[in-house]
Amino acid sequence: MVKEEDMAVVLIGHGSKLAYNKEVLEELRRRVELRGIFKEVKVAFMQLNSPSIEEVLRNLAKDGMKKIVALPVFLANGAHTTEDIPEKLKTSFAGEWADIGQDVELTYAKPIGVDERVVDILIDRVKESEPIKGE
Amino acid sequence: MVKEEDMAVVLIGHGSKLAYNKEVLEELRRRVELRGIFKEVKVAFMQLNSPSIEEVLRNLAKDGMKKIVALPVFLANGAHTTEDIPEKLKTSFAGEWADIGQDVELTYAKPIGVDERVVDILIDRVKESEPIKGE
Repeated sequence: MVKEEDMAVVLIGHGSKLAYNKEVLEELRRRVELRGIFKEVKVAFMQLNSPSIEEVLRNLAKDGMKKIVALPVFLANGAHTTEDIPEKLKTSFAGEWADIGQDVELTYAKPIGVDERVVDILIDRVKESEPIKGE
Repeated sequence: MVKEEDMAVVLIGHGSKLAYNKEVLEELRRRVELRGIFKEVKVAFMQLNSPSIEEVLRNLAKDGMKKIVALPVFLANGAHTTEDIPEKLKTSFAGEWADIGQDVELTYAKPIGVDERVVDILIDRVKESEPIKGE
């Protein structure tokens, strides 16, 4: 377990042609940063939006960050979190990038998953629900 | 605002060829049900898994449920939550299904979105993170 005050955290989003996914990721990033626990908090996107995972990881390494946590902001595991994102994490410091990545301790977090706090939120959303627009 | 004890809630998942999405949805469903707030709690999937949204809504209506909340278990809005799911909700009680849906009050909830409880979970996931498998 590395010290949190030396960690950089990268919130990884799915990416979307619509703006919602990026907006939610950026606001979650801001709120994680506000907690003041981690040295750096960044967002990166698996696809469609920028910056890419590779770009963010390489820039953090270039800036001297030695402990980076890749955090998939996904509800559940799936092909994206078990295959696509780990592949990008590995290639970020492969080949010509091996030098800048050689001292980086890169770890990968689990997705949000089943959690009573998610259950609490879902129940709140039910209570706030409204008729479908256009009906 | 309808009375919660008369409501049926349908947790709507994205659906996936892998089992994770369905497993998370079913476990969240079980935990919402355990809270004992709502009359019925079901899961439905937008694609790939069953049961479908239409099937679940029609069965709840046939069973006499008059208040149904469709709850998209998604992190953020996107084309699925703003277009695909609302379209399925509308067609569930259209045409030949209009009769069984005529007395149903159907409402639609917002996705999980930005919430301090999500921030808490993300920070926990960072603290639990591990080296990528295969490294």
